[in-house]
Parts: sequence; structure tokens; C-alpha cells
Amino acid sequence: MARQVLAVDIGGTKLAVGLVDDIGAVRASDRTPTTPGASGEELWDTLVGLTERVLADAGSPDVVGVGVGSGGPMRWPEGEISPLNIAGWRDFPLRARFQERYPDLPVRVHNDAVAVAIAEHWRGAAQGTENMLGMVVSTGVGGGLVLGGHVVDGATGNAGHIGHTVVDADGPSCVCGGVGCLEAVARGPALAQWAYERGWRTDRPEEDRTGRDLGADALAGDDLAVAAFARAGHALGIAIASAKALCDIEVVAIGGGIAQVGDLLFSPLQERLDRHAGFDFTRRVRVVPAALGQDAGLVGAAALVHQGDRYWSAD
Amino acid sequence: MARQVLAVDIGGTKLAVGLVDDIGAVRASDRTPTTPGASGEELWDTLVGLTERVLADAGSPDVVGVGVGSGGPMRWPEGEISPLNIAGWRDFPLRARFQERYPDLPVRVHNDAVAVAIAEHWRGAAQGTENMLGMVVSTGVGGGLVLGGHVVDGATGNAGHIGHTVVDADGPSCVCGGVGCLEAVARGPALAQWAYERGWRTDRPEEDRTGRDLGADALAGDDLAVAAFARAGHALGIAIASAKALCDIEVVAIGGGIAQVGDLLFSPLQERLDRHAGFDFTRRVRVVPAALGQDAGLVGAAALVHQGDRYWSAD
Repeated sequence: MARQVLAVDIGGTKLAVGLVDDIGAVRASDRTPTTPGASGEELWDTLVGLTERVLADAGSPDVVGVGVGSGGPMRWPEGEISPLNIAGWRDFPLRARFQERYPDLPVRVHNDAVAVAIAEHWRGAAQGTENMLGMVVSTGVGGGLVLGGHVVDGATGNAGHIGHTVVDADGPSCVCGGVGCLEAVARGPALAQWAYERGWRTDRPEEDRTGRDLGADALAGDDLAVAAFARAGHALGIAIASAKALCDIEVVAIGGGIAQVGDLLFSPLQERLDRHAGFDFTRRVRVVPAALGQDAGLVGAAALVHQGDRYWSAD
Repeated sequence: MARQVLAVDIGGTKLAVGLVDDIGAVRASDRTPTTPGASGEELWDTLVGLTERVLADAGSPDVVGVGVGSGGPMRWPEGEISPLNIAGWRDFPLRARFQERYPDLPVRVHNDAVAVAIAEHWRGAAQGTENMLGMVVSTGVGGGLVLGGHVVDGATGNAGHIGHTVVDADGPSCVCGGVGCLEAVARGPALAQWAYERGWRTDRPEEDRTGRDLGADALAGDDLAVAAFARAGHALGIAIASAKALCDIEVVAIGGGIAQVGDLLFSPLQERLDRHAGFDFTRRVRVVPAALGQDAGLVGAAALVHQGDRYWSAD
């Protein structure tokens, strides 16, 4: 029987659990929304219940470890998580809790965007490369780096935060406390707000002015919506040019809701990347859509265990 | 007897050769200017003559390998070099030539700025850290990255080119062909030109308006010269904030002529870094002057052999 990892993906609004085998196939999975206002213990009980349901539905198979991708920030590798959008968890010792439940198995926790990047490297759009950047452009802009075939953790497990590279030094303030970050320009809500301030859907309530709405309007040819995605593409092109110069990556795989508009994002991105990437070696980077979609977080979390030699450097 | 490496440092205007022992001490060294207009073979003969002189003067000791840091670009790890400022060498097979001379020894060639970064990690200002960026701010702006305790090469051996990260997307054109690169703003000649255009030393010939002159005037309190270094510091702060977000480095060690003005550069750098580095983890980076000075290139070149496990990933 295939070796399976219990994989967990903790996002801003949902908890997902799956069983992922050693070739990266998701054999079973389920998800549940996070309850706003839930306490840390309530959230933990919900997560445990979800894992038990997934395991029971799959016939209670043995698993070889537990892998978790979670929204940050977190203390790493301790796996004490404080996801920005889950107020009930602040320094919550998620790794220790899972380790108590599975004392004989490896339990590994990393940032959710790092998990997505790992998944794209292991089984997605960046297979076969040794040097890649995976990105998620959505409500935020996250990322993860693989260099020399191994995930880059950095000093505190926070490497890969391309969303907080500076693309416009005199630009908008960012939720991180900085100024001019890629995320401050290119996150979905910022794009929607930018378009709204210029006349997009000014007669509609805020809940009808999401990044998703903006994408639909862009695909339908709305000029302002198209311009907003061009703005995002330019910011991404600048950030990727810088990342390429610094890390000499071969492939950038971009997923997340904002990337679903396709060429409306990727064409202005490439144009701006060409403008800023001067050296031959910087020009060689390929920017491609992510291949794995919704399951990427679970697949990457599982890879922390299945492929620990490449993707887990701690303990 | 201490194990010694024959170390070679190929800069824009000089060739340097040394014997470096396994604790990073330079036991002997000599240097010679490169002759403008010299052919590739003439330059090679000059370099061989210099190595023979250094070896003979030291009593012809056995060496355990050859390490070279050279100005780029180069094909790596082949070590076919095309230093921008040495026209006689274009795709010159330096590594193969040394390998012919020393068929039984390891011969390793890397970018000169990478060698400097390695030196600062091994024996300089970033000792004891696992995640650092070494920079040289001079006629150009170069760099090298060490992450997880190992040098980062990237797909083509060109990782570390922080000089070509984008700090001002609408800024000046760069020699690399890009726009708004850190190097285009902060290299010595660009700073001198910027100050000149605003009235600095307008009555003096060009040879009296170097980066070195600018530094001397800044230290003497000249307002325009001080402003030029503040401009460089701001650009460096932006680039370092981005590098920190992406790579989660702990220490940045900055050397080169432009860094010799001290606080006139480092204070505006830190101010700008604080402005752009929002997250706690990004604030934790320490920016310090490089410790090794002139010998750094030789020490780092030797480390490619002495400390190959950490600093040489190819073959």
C-alpha cells in the first residue's frame, strides 16, 4: 500500500485536511471554514475532528507523518502559528499539539506559500528545475523559494516573502508595516480598490467589488479592470526581475485567484520583466502559471514529510 | 605545514595572486595591473608569471588546489570568463587553463563578488551566521549569497547579483541593459555624476571627480557629496529590504570603496531599510561594514577549495 501523509492546509478562511501518497496524489480530502471568533481550543477541536473524519472515511489507514502548511507569521521550525486572519490562534503550538497526538511520527509545519512552492517544484509547473520561485497572488502575495534543489528557509523560516519586496519605494503602505511592497500593489483587494477609485463599479456595494469580480470584468473587457491587472503584472515583473538577479532562478510558477485572468496578467508582467532584466542570465527565467490549483497546499505539506531531504532542513 | 591554496583575484584593473592557508590567512601575495589592450594570451602569460613569482618567493610550497574569483560575466562552473573591463578575455577558458597546469589539483572559479561574500562568511563580518549577503559597492555593485550555511549559485552561477535588483522602476538605465537597478544608482561613477550635475566640482576635470574624491569631500562635509552618499544609502536600503524579505538573511556585510565613508552611507541606508522592512523578521537583519578589506577576494577564492563543502556545489 502506498505510504500516505496526513496533510493539513490552514488558510485565512478554511481548514483543509487530506491524505497524500508518495507520488503526490491526494487520495482523500475534506475542508471546513474557520469560524470567526472561535477560540484557539475550539479551532483545534475543529481541526482534530476534520482529521478524524478524513481518516475514518478512508478506512483508518496508517500514515507515515503529518505535514502542515499554515498562514503566517509563525515561529519556525517550532510551528507556533499566528495566522493573520485567524484571530483565535496567536502563538498556537500547532506542531507540538500534533506531535502529542502522533508521538512516533514526524510532524512538520511550514508557511502555506512555501508549501505551495514546494508542491509546484515536486509535482507541478517547476518539476525538473533546481532553482524556482513559487508564488500565490490572491488576497495577499506569498511565495517560496527552491534553490539548488532544496527549499530555502532563511534565518527564521521566513524566506520566500516576495510579496514584501519593494516594487515602488514611494508607493502605498503595506499591512506588514513597510512601504511600496509588491503585496501592497498587487493583492486582490488593492487592485479592486485601485479600480474603484477610478470609477469601477462605483454603484455597487463593497461585497460586489472583490478581486474575483475584477477578474470577471477584466475577462469581459472592462478597461479599468484590465488596467488594474496590468498594474499588478507590472509590479510582479519588477519583483521577479529583482528575484532573478538575486537568486538566479529558472522558473517562476504563479498561482492564486489573481493569476486566473491569464494573459491579462502574464503579458504585462513579461513586458515589465523584459524591461528590467538586462543580463542574459536574468532574461532566461520562465514565468508560468502554477499547475496544481486548490490541492497545492496539501501536496506541499505532504512533501515536507515524503521528500524531507529536499524540503525540510530543520531538526 | 599548513595546507595552502593558490588564490587568484581578477578585478577590473588588476590581477592578484596569493597563498592562503586553511584558516584563511594570506601567507604571501602580489599583484599587477592589467594592461589595457593586452590580448587574452598576453594576459594569461602575465597571470602565470605572477603565480610563479609568488610561489617562488614563498619557497615553492606544495598547494592543495587553485581558487579563482573573477569579474563576470562568466560561464559557470566551466570558468570561461569575460570580465567586463578586461577586453582581451572573452569566453577565456581560465579554469581549463589552470587545470592543464595543475592536472591533479582541484581548480575552482567563481564570480569575484561571490568570493568576497564567501570570505566575509568564512573569516569576516558574517562569521557564525548561516544566512548572509556580502556586497561590494565600488565602480559596480556586486554581491554573493550564503543561505543555510552554503553559497547560493543559482541556475547559472549568477546568484548574488543584488546590484541588478530594481530600486527605482522609473530610474536610470543600467549597463546591464535593465532600468532602475541598484548599481545604476549607487555605483561610484553614478554618484559622482549625480553630484556633478548638481554643481559638485564643476570646475574640475573628470579625473578629479571620482567616487573616491566624492568620498573625501563627503567626509569633509560637502553638502552635495553628503547628499550623494545618502542617495546611495537609500538605494541600498531598498535593495536590502527586498533581499531580506525574499531570503530571510541575518547579516549584510558591505565593503568596497563607497562603503568607506561609514555612517554617511550606513545611516541613510538603515533609515530606508527601517522604512521598508515591516515584519519583525525583516527588521532583524544587521547591516555591517565588511571586515576583510583588500584581501577578501583572495581569501574567498581560497575558500572555494579549503571549504568546498560549503562554498563549491559544482562537480
